[in-house]
Amino acid sequence: MKSYTLEPVGFIRSSVKGRGDAPRQGAEGAPDAWLEIEPRFADALLGMKVGNELIVITWLDEAKRDVLKNHPRSDETRPLTGVFYSRSPARPNPLGLHPVTVREIDGTRLKIRPIEVFDGTPVIDIKSASTRADD
Amino acid sequence: MKSYTLEPVGFIRSSVKGRGDAPRQGAEGAPDAWLEIEPRFADALLGMKVGNELIVITWLDEAKRDVLKNHPRSDETRPLTGVFYSRSPARPNPLGLHPVTVREIDGTRLKIRPIEVFDGTPVIDIKSASTRADD
Repeated sequence: MKSYTLEPVGFIRSSVKGRGDAPRQGAEGAPDAWLEIEPRFADALLGMKVGNELIVITWLDEAKRDVLKNHPRSDETRPLTGVFYSRSPARPNPLGLHPVTVREIDGTRLKIRPIEVFDGTPVIDIKSASTRADD
Repeated sequence: MKSYTLEPVGFIRSSVKGRGDAPRQGAEGAPDAWLEIEPRFADALLGMKVGNELIVITWLDEAKRDVLKNHPRSDETRPLTGVFYSRSPARPNPLGLHPVTVREIDGTRLKIRPIEVFDGTPVIDIKSASTRADD
């Protein structure tokens, strides 16, 4: 089987250090976080502005990769659901998708919200949220 | 630098074999395509239904990984833009995001549309399009 190698383009810096700190209400209650881009990718930020809407793609390095179905939101009253029709972090390639807004820019650091991931989570890609926002 | 290994969970089968076949109008003009899930991930499809809205994440294996800024849509009248604020396929980790609807299900094959990628493109993740669609 073919495989592909990813390198982080940056990391999330957040006050959420572990499960005990995770906001109870999901992303709505998430604090601001900083996305620190690796300096060698600085040119990929050209044109970035406060207010831009982005999709940040993370690598959820603490997620289980051998889970193919589970109870959504760990609620056992919900039927078992395949991870390809859920947003569970557990999945063969543990990618997280996070729509965020840029709140502040400081060199190669972007303050973004909302994002509900642990401090140190690797970021593997960043895109405009709009398929037309490249103008 | 840390790195992570991805394995394809499936592949796109499409009549779009190369650049000459790509629809001129973007995804709106894209044909239906089949997403063939690898049989060992079949359980991750539990609960999948025709009409479901998904986000398919592809690995754009023909994209350049050393491009950090370019002219959006290859239009040189547009200013150079960092790839982290565009939807260019060229980027350090060449992930593609595709919102699609399931049109038909045949075993571990999903007919989906619209999706504008070449035949054989690896799929690395599939999620519900809604953060609440796991019910």
